[in-house]
Amino acid sequence: MSDIDRAALERFFTAAPFIRELGLELVSITPGECRSRLEIAARHLQQDGFVHAGVQGAMADHTAGAAAASLLRPGQHILGAEYKINLLRAARGESMYCVARVIKAGRTLTVAEAENWCVAGGEEKLVSKALVTLAVVGETLTGGRS
Amino acid sequence: MSDIDRAALERFFTAAPFIRELGLELVSITPGECRSRLEIAARHLQQDGFVHAGVQGAMADHTAGAAAASLLRPGQHILGAEYKINLLRAARGESMYCVARVIKAGRTLTVAEAENWCVAGGEEKLVSKALVTLAVVGETLTGGRS
Amino acid sequence: MSDIDRAALERFFTAAPFIRELGLELVSITPGECRSRLEIAARHLQQDGFVHAGVQGAMADHTAGAAAASLLRPGQHILGAEYKINLLRAARGESMYCVARVIKAGRTLTVAEAENWCVAGGEEKLVSKALVTLAVVGETLTGGRS
Amino acid sequence: MSDIDRAALERFFTAAPFIRELGLELVSITPGECRSRLEIAARHLQQDGFVHAGVQGAMADHTAGAAAASLLRPGQHILGAEYKINLLRAARGESMYCVARVIKAGRTLTVAEAENWCVAGGEEKLVSKALVTLAVVGETLTGGRS
Repeated sequence: MSDIDRAALERFFTAAPFIRELGLELVSITPGECRSRLEIAARHLQQDGFVHAGVQGAMADHTAGAAAASLLRPGQHILGAEYKINLLRAARGESMYCVARVIKAGRTLTVAEAENWCVAGGEEKLVSKALVTLAVVGETLTGGRS
Repeated sequence: MSDIDRAALERFFTAAPFIRELGLELVSITPGECRSRLEIAARHLQQDGFVHAGVQGAMADHTAGAAAASLLRPGQHILGAEYKINLLRAARGESMYCVARVIKAGRTLTVAEAENWCVAGGEEKLVSKALVTLAVVGETLTGGRS
Repeated sequence: MSDIDRAALERFFTAAPFIRELGLELVSITPGECRSRLEIAARHLQQDGFVHAGVQGAMADHTAGAAAASLLRPGQHILGAEYKINLLRAARGESMYCVARVIKAGRTLTVAEAENWCVAGGEEKLVSKALVTLAVVGETLTGGRS
Repeated sequence: MSDIDRAALERFFTAAPFIRELGLELVSITPGECRSRLEIAARHLQQDGFVHAGVQGAMADHTAGAAAASLLRPGQHILGAEYKINLLRAARGESMYCVARVIKAGRTLTVAEAENWCVAGGEEKLVSKALVTLAVVGETLTGGRS
C-alpha cells in the first residue's frame, strides 16, 4: 500500500462528521484489514454504563467499510449495503477497538467481518461481532460502470 | 397502557446518554409499537451528506428496544441480542423517523422490525429496515428467573 | 407482467433441483411480489416435529429471489448475496406459505422481505421472517455490464 | 467430553429427518465446536450447478446448533433463534464441510459462527459464512427454568 493510498484512507476514515463526533480513531489500515479505536466516554453509554449497541454497530460498519475501501481501484468507492451485529457481552471499560477483515472482495460486493473488543483494567473481551456487506460502486477494471 | 407505564417508558427511552447525545426523541409508544424522531444535524452525517449507517442502526435498535420494553412485566428488562439492518436508499433530508413493531413477544426473546424513514421537502422515503432480536431478562410470570 | 414473463418466472422458480426436491411450489408472482407454498412432509422436519429452520431459510431466500427476478430487465439475473431469518414460532401444521415482497429494487442490489406462515387446522401463524439481499447481475439499461 | 455425551450429540445431529434427507453428516464434535460434511449431489443444486443458498444456510444453522448443544448441561436444549448467512463464492465441487464455533455461550443465548467450505479437485474455498443465535432452554444450574 503506497503512502498516498494510506493517507487517502486515513482522510476517508474521519471524513464523516458522525465518526469524528463519536471519536472513533483509525489505528491501522492494510489491504483488506482495518483497526480502529474508541476511548470510551459518557456519551457512548446506555443507562447501565455499557457502550450502547448503536455505537458498537457504528464501529463495526465503519471499520469494515474502511477495510473494504483499502482494496478499491481508482475511481471506485464503497457504499454500505447492510450489516448484522451480535452483542455478546456487556461492554464496560476504558476503551474499545475494532478489527475488521475483508473475507470476500468482489467486483460489486465486498463482505467483511468485524470484531469489537472492550479493554478494562488491562483485560480484553470480545463484546460484539458483525458481518458487513458493502457495495463497490464506480469504474471497474474493464472500464464499464458498476 | 397506564400513564405510569408510559411515563416510565418515556424516561427509559432517553435514559441512555448516547441516545440523548444523538438527539433521538420518543414520539409515541403503545403496547408493541414505538415511534421515534431525529432532527437531522451535521453531526449525524457521513462525508456525502447522508445520515450515517451507524446512526440508522442505532435508531432501529433503540426504538425496537423500546417497543419490546412496552410489553414487559414488572421486574423484567430488555437487553439487545442482535440486529441486522439493510440500508435501502440514501438518507438525506430534514428529519428521520423510526417505526418499530414487535412481531413476536416471547418469554425470553422478543423480535421487532424497525423501519427508518427520511423526510425531505415534505416527501418521505423508506431509507432502511431492520430486524432486531432482544432478550427478555428478569422475573417471569411463574416467578422463576429467566 | 406479460404471459411470457410469467411463464419464464414459473420455469425459473422450479429450475433448481433443490427446490423441486423440497417440494416448494410457486403460487403467484406479480412485479415485486412472490408467493410460494410447501406441503409439509416428514422430510422437512427436525426431531420435535417442527419444520426445520433450514427449510424455512430456503423458502424465504428462494421466494425472495423470485420476487426480485420479477423486476429484472432482459439479460439480467439474480444472485443471492445474503439473508437473515428470525425464527419466531414453532412451525407445525399441514402446510406453509411464504410471501416475499421487494422493498428496494436497485440497479445492482435488490432487497426483499419474506414472511413464512404455517397453516394448522385452518389457523395461520407467522413462523419466521427474513430480510434478503440479492445482487442484480447482467446487462443494465445503459448497456454497460454491472 | 465423555463418550456418553459424544454419542448423545451424534444421535442429536442426525435426529432431524431434514438433515438425514439432506445427507449432512457429523464429522467431529468437541466442546464448543462442530464440523459437518455434505457429499454434493444433484438434489442440493440450483439451476447453475451451484449448491443452493438454502442448503448452505441449513448446514450453517444445524452445525452451529450442534456446536451450541455440546456446551449444554443436563436438561437443557437448543432452539434456533435466528441466523444470517453471507454467500461469498459460488459453491461448486465434490463436497462441502462446515466448521461452527461458539463465540459466546450464555445462560439463555449462545452465539456461534459457521463457515461453509467447498472442496473441488483438492482445493478448498470459503463459500459462505454465518452468524447464528441460539436460545438455551431448560433447567439452569440454579434450578430455575430459563
